[in-house]
Amino acid sequence: YEWRSQQRQQWNVRASIQAKQTFNPIRSIVDGIKICPNSSKEFISLSIGDPTVFGNLVTDGTVRAAIKEVVDSGNFDGYAPAIGYQTTRDAVAKYYSCPEAPLEAKDVIMTNGCSQAIDLAINVLANPGDNILIPKPGFSLYKTLALSAGIQIRHYNLLPERSWEVDLKHLESLVDGQTACIVINNPSNPCGSVFNHQHIRDILQIAEKKHVPILADEIYGDLVFPGEEFISVAQLSRSVPVLACGGLAKRWLVPGWRVGWILIHDRDGIMGSEIRDGLIRLSQKILGPSTIIQGALNHILNKPPESFFMNTINFIKSNADLCFDRLSSVPGLTPILPRGTMYMMVAIEMDKFPEFEDDVNFIQALVTEQSVFCLPAKCFEFNNYIRLVLTVPTPLMLQACQRLWDFCQKHYSSST
Amino acid sequence: YEWRSQQRQQWNVRASIQAKQTFNPIRSIVDGIKICPNSSKEFISLSIGDPTVFGNLVTDGTVRAAIKEVVDSGNFDGYAPAIGYQTTRDAVAKYYSCPEAPLEAKDVIMTNGCSQAIDLAINVLANPGDNILIPKPGFSLYKTLALSAGIQIRHYNLLPERSWEVDLKHLESLVDGQTACIVINNPSNPCGSVFNHQHIRDILQIAEKKHVPILADEIYGDLVFPGEEFISVAQLSRSVPVLACGGLAKRWLVPGWRVGWILIHDRDGIMGSEIRDGLIRLSQKILGPSTIIQGALNHILNKPPESFFMNTINFIKSNADLCFDRLSSVPGLTPILPRGTMYMMVAIEMDKFPEFEDDVNFIQALVTEQSVFCLPAKCFEFNNYIRLVLTVPTPLMLQACQRLWDFCQKHYSSST
Ligand SMILES: Cc1ncc(COP(=O)(O)O)c(C=O)c1O
Ligand SMILES: Cc1ncc(COP(=O)(O)O)c(C=O)c1O
Repeated sequence: YEWRSQQRQQWNVRASIQAKQTFNPIRSIVDGIKICPNSSKEFISLSIGDPTVFGNLVTDGTVRAAIKEVVDSGNFDGYAPAIGYQTTRDAVAKYYSCPEAPLEAKDVIMTNGCSQAIDLAINVLANPGDNILIPKPGFSLYKTLALSAGIQIRHYNLLPERSWEVDLKHLESLVDGQTACIVINNPSNPCGSVFNHQHIRDILQIAEKKHVPILADEIYGDLVFPGEEFISVAQLSRSVPVLACGGLAKRWLVPGWRVGWILIHDRDGIMGSEIRDGLIRLSQKILGPSTIIQGALNHILNKPPESFFMNTINFIKSNADLCFDRLSSVPGLTPILPRGTMYMMVAIEMDKFPEFEDDVNFIQALVTEQSVFCLPAKCFEFNNYIRLVLTVPTPLMLQACQRLWDFCQKHYSSST
Repeated sequence: YEWRSQQRQQWNVRASIQAKQTFNPIRSIVDGIKICPNSSKEFISLSIGDPTVFGNLVTDGTVRAAIKEVVDSGNFDGYAPAIGYQTTRDAVAKYYSCPEAPLEAKDVIMTNGCSQAIDLAINVLANPGDNILIPKPGFSLYKTLALSAGIQIRHYNLLPERSWEVDLKHLESLVDGQTACIVINNPSNPCGSVFNHQHIRDILQIAEKKHVPILADEIYGDLVFPGEEFISVAQLSRSVPVLACGGLAKRWLVPGWRVGWILIHDRDGIMGSEIRDGLIRLSQKILGPSTIIQGALNHILNKPPESFFMNTINFIKSNADLCFDRLSSVPGLTPILPRGTMYMMVAIEMDKFPEFEDDVNFIQALVTEQSVFCLPAKCFEFNNYIRLVLTVPTPLMLQACQRLWDFCQKHYSSST
């Protein structure tokens, strides 16, 4: 009768542990905020990292033309290899290759957006029970993906007072024998920071000393403001293996198209064939991103004129400057000027706003009174900051700054 | 010094257990076959389930037009919800809804091909250590995905002598309290079989008795030959929860585009909100399929004329009949007439071919002598069969049959 007892006696269909431990921390925080905008004021959302929302930033005509050509050709309807077409991987390799960090097609894995690139990179490097080091404040997906797979996370601090550089001592102190990788997000969401040579070298030195590979999320790599320089981690690495994740989402203004990639940098062959092979295996589960976009990728990368990219950057930079300027004079707020990406962090002197417990409270009141919504830093595991999205049309951006001024003016209390 | 010992003293970057246990069994078998075609004969591959390979089957003009319109509009470049646009899910729900199994947008999860649909469905239902029941012979991805996630597989037999119906007793005997789902692939790859009402009812009865949900892989649901009827599992289910997986790949002839879906059928609310919620959570890891195709999906589903679909089906059916006819007279081979899909299974009387140990050996010699390649049933965990792909241009198809005739004529040994 033992056998009988093993049978299910009634329906009991439950979601798996994996499903239950997969969650987006932003969702639970945002869902906790009651969004009841002031009906007398137009709602302005500065919350979503999607540059296409307002229609002012659109991809280049050459990009659309390339897709249409591919669709018409009929040559890209069949299955591609799970890691992507050879020609597509070749195009990505050529585009990102540089003398210090050369790439070939074999070093490229095409993915369903940068999100899947990060997912594959984490899952090829880490086992359940291992840990990965992730930035704080930082993009929430790292945590989502790690916890989904039963991988532990350890947050290393970024220092706002040092332009959001990594607290190197803290980083180093977190590494142990179970550390599968260090996630570096440069340029950073939410900070808008861009690391300089020396700082990347310092990070690499820790990785080298501790023998830990780096997962470099460089999705904002080409969104740095004039005068700033983006240096990829791989460019400065001598031996530390780097999996660099990127994609079309931001620079090409097509996040919905879902095309990304992993660039494998392993000059000393430390990862050997095992990690490459592991990535190929994992990619076979869902067979790569859409062939329509893969087929057009060479053109997408190379056809848009430099002016297209510069327009986006100049627009964001100009919004950043305007915003920084306006918010600098707002009582109780301290904006931090970004060097790239499409975000700006703004510190709140919480003790000057005794009505509000934390940044989530602050945002809740802001949206209710002023119909302006942006993310509290809690969404990035940080406190007492808010993150503004800078891709919004300038008049709206200024309107939002004005309302922030009104709001802070009203609630600021200098007596405390 | 304990602390010190926990640190890595040298580089040791290994692929994760998950990566190592993720593999495509077809690959290892096919890689084991030395493909050295006879250089005096044109190579004919009847091995890949991609209807676009030979260029004779192409998607409809309305499908291409719909994509181009979406690309031009610029309205579908931004992020969609991870489970897909509401309008897209609405279109899929409408297309597959029927009185016996009604669907709404909330019952649809958009995925990166049917492959990801199956991946999400398995992973929302099963925990590591659970088991899922999969058909034998059957499509290899179920095993790949299950083993990748540490989920066990149990093969239930399909009976060639009963038109590849499920061995119901065997199926039932495999269920225990750890059985997370029964995977039903109807119409079947590789068998080309289509289940009738009664058989689906019989399967459902077991699922009901044992309280096990069904994962219905119905990617070939609309590829059934004239006179045959496709009945989806959900249509006949009264209470058994069904996750039905499908996609654009086969019927619309665009497997590379990577768009699929899960249809959630749970009329008695047995899965409650937990499974839906779990699927939503899991979908957030890679944020759904490309918006370009999602935006066009309503048109893709509804614009192609009936003749487009009928042309494909009639073409495959005509190839199936021709092939069946030719191969029926080949000594040592017994083709089984398919009722749908794009495959035909052909039995080999192995004892008539004493030179060859098994179907893999047989194929190895076939490709070497006759430059015809198709998959040995071992790729589907079966023996002594080969699977032919029927989407090949008819002259090539006939050529392949002729060469199979020559090959078997030469190696057939009636004395044994
Ligand atoms: C830092 C960072 N990495 C990765 C991603 C995901 O990119 P994708 O849309 O290509 O998946 C985002 C998206 O906002 C991001 O901010
Ligand atoms: C039975 C079966 N299910 C699922 C799939 C995968 O479909 P997709 O290409 O949409 O991922 C295939 C592909 O051949 C198949 O044969």
